[in-house]
Amino acid sequence: MEVPEPAPELVVSEWLNTDDPPTLLRLRGQVVVIEAFQMLCPGCVAHGLPQAQRVQATFGTDLVVLGLHTVFEHHAAMTPVALAAFLHEYRITFPVGVDASQPDDDIPVTMRRYGLRGTPSLLLVDRSGRLRANVFGQIDDLALGASLARLLAEPAGAED
Amino acid sequence: MEVPEPAPELVVSEWLNTDDPPTLLRLRGQVVVIEAFQMLCPGCVAHGLPQAQRVQATFGTDLVVLGLHTVFEHHAAMTPVALAAFLHEYRITFPVGVDASQPDDDIPVTMRRYGLRGTPSLLLVDRSGRLRANVFGQIDDLALGASLARLLAEPAGAED
Amino acid sequence: MEVPEPAPELVVSEWLNTDDPPTLLRLRGQVVVIEAFQMLCPGCVAHGLPQAQRVQATFGTDLVVLGLHTVFEHHAAMTPVALAAFLHEYRITFPVGVDASQPDDDIPVTMRRYGLRGTPSLLLVDRSGRLRANVFGQIDDLALGASLARLLAEPAGAED
Amino acid sequence: MEVPEPAPELVVSEWLNTDDPPTLLRLRGQVVVIEAFQMLCPGCVAHGLPQAQRVQATFGTDLVVLGLHTVFEHHAAMTPVALAAFLHEYRITFPVGVDASQPDDDIPVTMRRYGLRGTPSLLLVDRSGRLRANVFGQIDDLALGASLARLLAEPAGAED
Repeated sequence: MEVPEPAPELVVSEWLNTDDPPTLLRLRGQVVVIEAFQMLCPGCVAHGLPQAQRVQATFGTDLVVLGLHTVFEHHAAMTPVALAAFLHEYRITFPVGVDASQPDDDIPVTMRRYGLRGTPSLLLVDRSGRLRANVFGQIDDLALGASLARLLAEPAGAED
Repeated sequence: MEVPEPAPELVVSEWLNTDDPPTLLRLRGQVVVIEAFQMLCPGCVAHGLPQAQRVQATFGTDLVVLGLHTVFEHHAAMTPVALAAFLHEYRITFPVGVDASQPDDDIPVTMRRYGLRGTPSLLLVDRSGRLRANVFGQIDDLALGASLARLLAEPAGAED
Repeated sequence: MEVPEPAPELVVSEWLNTDDPPTLLRLRGQVVVIEAFQMLCPGCVAHGLPQAQRVQATFGTDLVVLGLHTVFEHHAAMTPVALAAFLHEYRITFPVGVDASQPDDDIPVTMRRYGLRGTPSLLLVDRSGRLRANVFGQIDDLALGASLARLLAEPAGAED
Repeated sequence: MEVPEPAPELVVSEWLNTDDPPTLLRLRGQVVVIEAFQMLCPGCVAHGLPQAQRVQATFGTDLVVLGLHTVFEHHAAMTPVALAAFLHEYRITFPVGVDASQPDDDIPVTMRRYGLRGTPSLLLVDRSGRLRANVFGQIDDLALGASLARLLAEPAGAED
C-alpha cells in the first residue's frame, strides 16, 4: 500500500454556506469529506451530492463535509450566483467553495492539484491532513461508511 | 365537464434545440405536450423532464414535445446560456422556449397566461389547439399514457 | 397487422380473492388485463405485479385486472396455500386464478394455450374477447397506459 | 451505554446453502451479520435481504453473513422446500438456517431468545460473541457500513 500524500490545500475564490472559510490546515485533527462537483453534472445531482448530504446527516459533527465546485466546462453557466441558487434549491447546507480559476486553463486550480478525473469525485482527508481516497464516479454507501469509520477511529497525527 | 379553452399562444424570447421556432398556431392538427420547468427546480430534474423525455421516446413523431423554461425565481442564475448548458448535460433534445419576461414582474408572460402554479407543470394541447390538461407536480405515467392516447385518437377540429 | 385471435379461455383450478370465479366469456364486453406470474419470480414481484396494481388503481372499474398463477417450476413451493399468504402480504386484491396443472407436464394448461415464454407476462384482452397483446418481461407504463386507453375506446363487438 | 450481552446460540432445525452448519460458538473470533427474515415479508425481499447481499459482496470473507428464517406467520406457506426455491430464485448464497419451531408457539425458538419484534431484523455479533445490535426494520447503508468497520477493528476477546 502506498504511503498517503498530504492533501493539497484548497484554493477557493469564494465560499458559500459559511461565514468562516475553512482550510485543510485549520481542519487538521478532523476527518474531512470533500465532494467535488459541478452543479450541471447529472451524476453529481443524482448521486454524489445526495450521498454527501447523507454523510452529513449520518455522521453529524463527527466529521466535516465540504463541497468544492470544480467548474471545468460551461463556465458561463455555472457562476457563483447560479451556484448559490442551486444550493438553495437542493437544500445543500454544508460549506461549498468555488475552486479558483486561472488564466488560460479550463481546469480550476484545486482540481489540477488533486488530478481529478472529472465530477463527481470524492476526497477523504484524514485527521493528519493526508489524502486517503480520491474516487471518481459512484461509490457505494456501505464501503464509504466503513472507510469513514476507519478514518474516524485513527488518532490525530498517529502515523506522522 | 367544462368546455376546454383555446390554449394561449406561447410567448417565447428565444428557442433552443430548434432552428424552426414553433407556435401553437402552426402546430394545430397535432397533439402538443408542453413541459414547463426551471432548470434549478429539483422536481423538474428528477421527475418532470425525464417524463417528457420518456413521452418523446415512446410516442416519437405521433405528437410534439416542447419545453418551456418558465423562470420565476433566481433569474440571474437561470439564464439562456445556463439553460443551453443544462440541456446539453441532461441530453434534452426537444425544442425548449424561454418564456418571455416582462418589466416589473417576476412571473414570465406565458406562465401568467396559463395561470401556472409552479414547476414542473405539464400542459396538454389537443389537435384543435385547446388546452386539455394543466397539471402542477407529478403525474403518473399510466394516466398520462392514457390521456395522450385519447388525445391522439381525436380527429383534428372534430369538436370545434 | 395480423388479425387478433380469440383469447383462449382460462383454465383455472382455484380462484383466490373472489367468490365469483370469472371467465373470459362472461367478461366479454370489458377490457381484461391478465398478469401471469409466479409468486417466487423476482421480476414479477419487483415489476409485473406492482404494475398490475397500478393499473387497478388508475383505471378502477373501467377494466378488469386478473392474476394468473402460472407455476412451471418449484411446484412444491408455490402451492395455493403459499399463494394465499403471498397475496395477503403483498396486498394484492384482484382475483387470482391458479393455472390448472396437467399430468406429465410442468407447464400448466393456460400457459400452454397462450404460448407464454415465462413470467411475468402481460395479456390484454379486448371487449370482443380477442387477445391483443402478449408481452413477456417488462413493459413501460406510458406505453401500457396508451394501449389500455385505445382498447377502452373500442366499442364492444365492433370489429367482429 | 449498556454492557453487551452474549448473543444467544442459534437454534436451527435445518441449514440451507451450506454443508457445514455454523454455530455462533464456532464463529467466535469473527464478526457475524445475521439477517432474520421471512420469505414472504415484502420489506425483507425489498430491503433486508438485498442489504445482506450487499454486505456479503462488500466485505467478502472479512465477516460472516448468515440468514435466519424466522417464520412466525403463514407457517404452511413458508416451508423449507419453499425457502429453498426462494433462495435459488433470489440468488441468495449465504447460509440460511430455519429457526426451530416449538409446540404451541407461533414464534420460533431463536426469535424468542433474541426478542425480535418482527422481520426484517438485523443482528450484529462481535468477535467475542456478544450481541452488539438488534435492529428491526430498515437501517441505512452508511450507518451499517460504519458499524461493521468498527466491529471489524475490535480485537477478538478484547473486552472480555
